[in-house]
Amino acid sequence: MALQAPVSASHPLDPLHAGEVKAASQLLLRHLGCKSNEIRFKVVDLAEPPKALTLPYLHHGGPAPDRKCRVYYHRLKSPILSIAIVNVTQGKVEQSYDAPDSQGPVDWVEYDLVHKACLSHPEVLAEVAKLKLPPNARIENDPWSFGTDNHHERRRLFQCYMYLALNDDPQANHYSIPLPLAPIFDADTYELVDLQRLPTGATDELDSETQPWDPVSAVEYSSDLLGPNAFRKDLKPLQVLQPQGPSFSVQGRHIEWQKWSFQLGWNMREGPVLHDVRYEGRSLFYRVSMSEMTVPYGDPRSPYHRKQAFDLGDSGFGLTSNSLSLGCDCLGHIAYFNGIRVTSGGEPVIMPNVVCMHEVDDGIGWKHTNFRNGKSSVVRDRQLVIQCTATVANYEYILAFVLDQAANLHVDVRATGIVSTMPIRKGVQVPWGTVVAPGVLAVNHQHLFCLRVDPSLDGPKNTIVYDDCVLVEHEPQLNPSGCAFKVQTTAIEKPGGYDLDLNKGRVFKILNETKINSIAGKPVGYKLHPVPSQMLMAGPDTFNYQRGVFGTKPIWVTKYRDDELWASGEFTNQSREDTGIAKWAVRDESVKNEDVVLWHSFGTTHVTRTEDFPVMPKERMMLSLKPVNFFNLNPSNDVPRSSQNDNKSTLHQNDSICCSTKPSRM
Amino acid sequence: MALQAPVSASHPLDPLHAGEVKAASQLLLRHLGCKSNEIRFKVVDLAEPPKALTLPYLHHGGPAPDRKCRVYYHRLKSPILSIAIVNVTQGKVEQSYDAPDSQGPVDWVEYDLVHKACLSHPEVLAEVAKLKLPPNARIENDPWSFGTDNHHERRRLFQCYMYLALNDDPQANHYSIPLPLAPIFDADTYELVDLQRLPTGATDELDSETQPWDPVSAVEYSSDLLGPNAFRKDLKPLQVLQPQGPSFSVQGRHIEWQKWSFQLGWNMREGPVLHDVRYEGRSLFYRVSMSEMTVPYGDPRSPYHRKQAFDLGDSGFGLTSNSLSLGCDCLGHIAYFNGIRVTSGGEPVIMPNVVCMHEVDDGIGWKHTNFRNGKSSVVRDRQLVIQCTATVANYEYILAFVLDQAANLHVDVRATGIVSTMPIRKGVQVPWGTVVAPGVLAVNHQHLFCLRVDPSLDGPKNTIVYDDCVLVEHEPQLNPSGCAFKVQTTAIEKPGGYDLDLNKGRVFKILNETKINSIAGKPVGYKLHPVPSQMLMAGPDTFNYQRGVFGTKPIWVTKYRDDELWASGEFTNQSREDTGIAKWAVRDESVKNEDVVLWHSFGTTHVTRTEDFPVMPKERMMLSLKPVNFFNLNPSNDVPRSSQNDNKSTLHQNDSICCSTKPSRM
Repeated sequence: MALQAPVSASHPLDPLHAGEVKAASQLLLRHLGCKSNEIRFKVVDLAEPPKALTLPYLHHGGPAPDRKCRVYYHRLKSPILSIAIVNVTQGKVEQSYDAPDSQGPVDWVEYDLVHKACLSHPEVLAEVAKLKLPPNARIENDPWSFGTDNHHERRRLFQCYMYLALNDDPQANHYSIPLPLAPIFDADTYELVDLQRLPTGATDELDSETQPWDPVSAVEYSSDLLGPNAFRKDLKPLQVLQPQGPSFSVQGRHIEWQKWSFQLGWNMREGPVLHDVRYEGRSLFYRVSMSEMTVPYGDPRSPYHRKQAFDLGDSGFGLTSNSLSLGCDCLGHIAYFNGIRVTSGGEPVIMPNVVCMHEVDDGIGWKHTNFRNGKSSVVRDRQLVIQCTATVANYEYILAFVLDQAANLHVDVRATGIVSTMPIRKGVQVPWGTVVAPGVLAVNHQHLFCLRVDPSLDGPKNTIVYDDCVLVEHEPQLNPSGCAFKVQTTAIEKPGGYDLDLNKGRVFKILNETKINSIAGKPVGYKLHPVPSQMLMAGPDTFNYQRGVFGTKPIWVTKYRDDELWASGEFTNQSREDTGIAKWAVRDESVKNEDVVLWHSFGTTHVTRTEDFPVMPKERMMLSLKPVNFFNLNPSNDVPRSSQNDNKSTLHQNDSICCSTKPSRM
Repeated sequence: MALQAPVSASHPLDPLHAGEVKAASQLLLRHLGCKSNEIRFKVVDLAEPPKALTLPYLHHGGPAPDRKCRVYYHRLKSPILSIAIVNVTQGKVEQSYDAPDSQGPVDWVEYDLVHKACLSHPEVLAEVAKLKLPPNARIENDPWSFGTDNHHERRRLFQCYMYLALNDDPQANHYSIPLPLAPIFDADTYELVDLQRLPTGATDELDSETQPWDPVSAVEYSSDLLGPNAFRKDLKPLQVLQPQGPSFSVQGRHIEWQKWSFQLGWNMREGPVLHDVRYEGRSLFYRVSMSEMTVPYGDPRSPYHRKQAFDLGDSGFGLTSNSLSLGCDCLGHIAYFNGIRVTSGGEPVIMPNVVCMHEVDDGIGWKHTNFRNGKSSVVRDRQLVIQCTATVANYEYILAFVLDQAANLHVDVRATGIVSTMPIRKGVQVPWGTVVAPGVLAVNHQHLFCLRVDPSLDGPKNTIVYDDCVLVEHEPQLNPSGCAFKVQTTAIEKPGGYDLDLNKGRVFKILNETKINSIAGKPVGYKLHPVPSQMLMAGPDTFNYQRGVFGTKPIWVTKYRDDELWASGEFTNQSREDTGIAKWAVRDESVKNEDVVLWHSFGTTHVTRTEDFPVMPKERMMLSLKPVNFFNLNPSNDVPRSSQNDNKSTLHQNDSICCSTKPSRM
């Protein structure tokens, strides 16, 4: 039996192919001397090759590095997480070790088993019976990663938040009827650990006994439940037509579009990843990815104090990505890309259409009118959007990398979906959230993302600096009118966490100090337009803080090392500390003119509102990486001008005079 | 002769009609006993009716208030600015007074006369001769509002920044060849006041004599000059098709769209204005407008220290608005609206198509997938965009009010156009800007906008509050885990300037304290998602600061009074102080549960880069007003779900598996 991967990837940074997943699981079984029913696979994902081997391949025709897989698995019935690195090119297991102190991410198998254990457990059912629910009641539960409130807990635990649906619609909004029960299950034994009941009043205090349910109607979003008369009638179709097809080309996972090129990676943890991003062939970024996101809740009542999801490390934006269908998430001409995961038995499963790519028009890109004669040049802002939607139980995150023709790279994050709901008695108000529907409390929380940018501006050795705009003070001879301000540049010499400073207009830039723009006489660079955000709301002694140090500063700088990809560390599930940035950013090493990594933590403090229910309108966060003296002129100066000949817009007939292009000025 | 307006407006807040402009000028001439050649009209604009008369009209079937015009004019050859308020309904001049201490805004007539005076003045020509320009040289100049560096200056002055073009293309980029000459002209006498020369080195110091021009090539954006081979070839057309037409309706200036309604105003100063904005018939905003914008430059070298444009008060976003043509600025189905201005002789001139309105698709509005069965609901984010482009000499501002189906109102500002350029000797670097092309310095500057929001949430009496998210500290019994944070609300009782506070996640909200959302038990409101910005970079003793106090704080709250519309006061041209917010925000009066106005100052500190030349890619700033417990649920819950049947997207053929809608999970 040939255990090398039968289908070799076309690029070292491609997502795993089905044959590679299969080869990895088979190689590991052989290595362990196990049968497939003695191992439970959780994750088989690409273990990216070392940069030192990849750069020669990308830029100098060097050999393709070996393809390797990172495997998380359990020996059957063992609670111990095991890890292997399997070289599928060479057909051998390179590393194999246990992580007895860590919990791996959630997988669908255990999730379903816990879910079912909860719904069928006699003690749970007995407690549910006390609710005296109507006969059509359908009980649901979402097993949540337990979180952390104890240094000594080593069991793998899930807290099952329970809900009620009163109909069988496949989109019934059970989150609209949260029940006051949240049993805790052990995910190794599937045993009930504690039948925890939930507070429904202002304090932790529980009713002496589970009380009968106080009936309410659910607030639904299912169009079948709402019925056709519930919808507004006056929305007319809007379609995007691309009669000559798209402006992009796709060769495997190599994408070219409007002078950009990149390799579209994907993995279970991060979803889409941009590798080897270039513009006009010049290297910009070695890798750009969403690295982590944590969602701490601000309610101190037990068990809510433990709610702190790490939606990449605990679950995975790839694993939870929706399989997209044509015409629902995007307009125009859409390309889709698949993902891949592993079954518990080690078989590859294609996840169809987990990433979509299409072009959008974002209005005017630039415009100038010569006011002397009314002659205008308009360039539209065509963009390329690479997007996924991750459904992490109740919530949705829509992550998009957006390229434009002015050589800007944007990251567009939309938080939507259903807020996490808790039961609350009628008439009660708590300082921790808003009652968004009868009996439904939506607790205030944060979403703190961390974007990882591994720059390679004209080469891997770069420097992060920040520019402050400061007043020129106490220099009356230089600045008699007091209008002068100047840019003060501070190069970051050491790893660490850094603050934004709005009062100084602080801008973080990536520079290649060895390449000087010949026009400006300044080093070539890219700057970060961040999302200014409130940082993690928890003191340094809390588990929330200790587990998510990345969320306590908006900017982090570290020196590159292979495999340092995940902001809170490799294992976040029930973690007790951040083993990522918290460790890497305190090393005493130089990051100036070195292979350096820039991390940006940002997000939103979500104070909930009735308008967020049943499904919340997108909350959009957008950051950008923009060239600064990297090019000699506006990179979109060569974009064909906007013309009605191409655009074929139509005129609304109202009382305006149409089509005059020259303003009368006298 | 009947001097009442022959065409009466259909709504008291409509822009002036041609007949009203004509009537106003004729009424004023009769009132003054002048012939039309004895008066030079600058501005005839709508003088909006008092709110006390307008509200009964809007909400209670009250009578239409009289239509009135605000007229700025000069008696011939007089430097004194005169102002009249003319009631065109009653046919009488209600007020008429002089403002000898103020300068009115720039008008096209004086602008052209100054421009020509500069280009034909023998002393200027003699100085130009010293440049020893090639025979095909074409000299241009932009007369700039003089600015202020002297408390005693009362002349009306323009500084003519001079440029060179070496071709006759109508879009030749003369800003690419700035000349070291900037003569100052008196706009009342058209006399040369000072033939000021410009520094081209690191300090104010001038060459002893104007030196011969050091030849450079211009960086051009004209497609004719660039030629067809200069353009990228791989951009395919993208068209927006609305086969059933738009979702909006237009009756005169009354617009209805997706449960929104508003009256689309327009004036010379502000351009488009939203009046009487409602959602589902409920009053939201009495008036929303861009109130002012100032552009201070950070270069202390004379005369640059005086560069501080007030692009609304000095020029006007209406007056400088482009006449738009179909298919260049927007895709899809476009409605256009005209503006109106007055000639120096008092005749109305229609400005065609100065505002456009169309729908756009902004991607996913909300989405939820039931992960148990893969069933998704997606609502797209359809938006209504009301947009204008103002060309203020070199710069362009694209201002758009954007409504969406989740009852959010966004304001989208795009700065584009050509940066203001100054000459610089080869090899010289200055701390005040970036060399963006050979011989071209683009000085660092700020754009500080001020949005005025006159709320009327379920009635005119509203309160501005700010919510801080703060840790619950020193309460171990309440917050044993340390995860708790709560919202601390501070009601603003007095007018004043207020700060953002990122560390506290501070959110400013407008509330109607007398209307409680029955679900949430909290007052109905709207919150501001601001543009966090560096404020005005100049000390409090400077003219920059004194003239633009509004730009020194991000949030201002004032009590409503009629005619208090413009953040820096009525007359900003050569102003010596801010007579707007600086005065209104220090009154000792209550603003709690009163008719209150919220102002948001925001903008960008533009540190220039080579990529900003020749025309800069748009710099986008976006703020939002979003409901907070104003509605009982997501206002877009009733938007028809996104479907391929309506969207008609097309599939890219690559190696993906298409159209699977249900993820396989085991």
